[in-house]
Amino acid sequence: MRFVTAVKDERSFVGLVDERVSYIIDVQYAEEALLGSKNIPNSIIDFIRMNEVLDESIKVIEKLALEQKGAQYFYSPNDVKIKAPIPRPLKNIFCVGKNYAEHAIEMGSEADIPEHLMMFTKAPTTVIGPNDSVLLHENITNQLDYEGELAIVIGKKGRSISKEEALDYVFGYTIVNDITARDLQSRHKQFFIGKSLDASCPMGPFIAHKSIISNPNHLSLETKVNGELRQKGNTKQFIFDVQTIISVISAGMTLEPGDIIATGTPAGVGKGFKPPRFLKQGDSIEISIEGLGTLINSVGV
Amino acid sequence: MRFVTAVKDERSFVGLVDERVSYIIDVQYAEEALLGSKNIPNSIIDFIRMNEVLDESIKVIEKLALEQKGAQYFYSPNDVKIKAPIPRPLKNIFCVGKNYAEHAIEMGSEADIPEHLMMFTKAPTTVIGPNDSVLLHENITNQLDYEGELAIVIGKKGRSISKEEALDYVFGYTIVNDITARDLQSRHKQFFIGKSLDASCPMGPFIAHKSIISNPNHLSLETKVNGELRQKGNTKQFIFDVQTIISVISAGMTLEPGDIIATGTPAGVGKGFKPPRFLKQGDSIEISIEGLGTLINSVGV
Repeated sequence: MRFVTAVKDERSFVGLVDERVSYIIDVQYAEEALLGSKNIPNSIIDFIRMNEVLDESIKVIEKLALEQKGAQYFYSPNDVKIKAPIPRPLKNIFCVGKNYAEHAIEMGSEADIPEHLMMFTKAPTTVIGPNDSVLLHENITNQLDYEGELAIVIGKKGRSISKEEALDYVFGYTIVNDITARDLQSRHKQFFIGKSLDASCPMGPFIAHKSIISNPNHLSLETKVNGELRQKGNTKQFIFDVQTIISVISAGMTLEPGDIIATGTPAGVGKGFKPPRFLKQGDSIEISIEGLGTLINSVGV
Repeated sequence: MRFVTAVKDERSFVGLVDERVSYIIDVQYAEEALLGSKNIPNSIIDFIRMNEVLDESIKVIEKLALEQKGAQYFYSPNDVKIKAPIPRPLKNIFCVGKNYAEHAIEMGSEADIPEHLMMFTKAPTTVIGPNDSVLLHENITNQLDYEGELAIVIGKKGRSISKEEALDYVFGYTIVNDITARDLQSRHKQFFIGKSLDASCPMGPFIAHKSIISNPNHLSLETKVNGELRQKGNTKQFIFDVQTIISVISAGMTLEPGDIIATGTPAGVGKGFKPPRFLKQGDSIEISIEGLGTLINSVGV
């Protein structure tokens, strides 16, 4: 199951999609038409909170709906606006820094490979959806950079989660582009300011439920800028895998449904090139992760 | 005007208090009784969003209510539970690091005095109210430390706010105790993990409206642990003053009503002593800031 947040006629709803987002099933309307019940909320965070209750009916709805393409709750992507799956997170996005050894090296040297999980955050005001414009902020930075990343979406509240239990707390996975102003990142030491410019966190296109991602620690990831391959990695190169990340963060901090954890980016960011290749107006950034589709954004002013 | 969030008979409401919190006026009930209108919401974030509209009526309500002590919307502090003024922020709390030169030095050396604003965040799950227990988390840290700080509460949405306009975007000020696990802070490099343990952000007791704080950059601040004076500073020692902080953060990031910015702590934290004096079970921490009352919490397990 793959979930989107979409808007049609100014109504925001939870949709089911295929990997190419070639159709959208309006789950709330489909539930009413197919099951006669009205349990599904129209915010994805509420949906995630209810997921253990709704899980079975969602499967039924998806199966029945796919047998009746053309029903009025079946939309073409042209008829809706796909937003970030969680357009307004309820707290900052958690981000792991330098979680791929080669990326740590391209940002500095081998001494930058972390021994312990490094974590910073991005403000909720950074989030934009697929096809929305990344802002260049040229008045304050001339080193805007891309970072293609796997993001974990938490499904269940918990603290002191062991590695063994960690995946039970996951709802699913999506793609995040952790857009970074490198000059601000280094000037302000702590990463937050350089990581939290408005429109610096493209997210989506959908959340893949964990049931269809057999191993989050073995997914290929590619980032292209204007069609040119820049990042080619695999989450099997993680220094800290998904289970470790959840376990370390939750050791003293409660994780909640809808929390988003970006897991770090592989080598190939703009800053890693000699000379560096930062983003410029009109650039198109495409991030593809195995099973999670492709997140495309262009850079505006 | 000083605002609290309080709970009575399971109903959360916005209250007006004096500096010692010796009474609480239930603003929503007082409005109805005194003005016959029902415009005041019972969440402080909604209240802040409406403040420019409500400002005049609040002043009238406070004046009328104070003439009629004993009315049924007038509570004794024993009858209510005072919570953090913003019990659940809508994003992480913004925190300035090393904003007092002497504190930067006690944490390292003169080389640690920042040239540019350093900013990290604390998760919303860290927030607790006056008299709530700070958690010791002794399974993961043995270096829990206090940091008394002035916090700015944003009143109005804005980006690219100039220093000259900055105070127009402030709603008011409160006290925050930026409890920090020093071992986690240094182990994980970026500060977030060591700063975001559950129950590590006592806040309150009230938000003082900016109209009663003549200069936020000239307020004395004291922290006592078990009655012993540990921190004695004044916000006039800020490296980056309130206006600069707002201007730098908002350069590329939209600030929103209810955002909370902790402005950094003066010298005298536990880690600064030789040998260090970290918190232990049963310790009582008292932070007083001129015009903002006293925030008291003890350490539990």
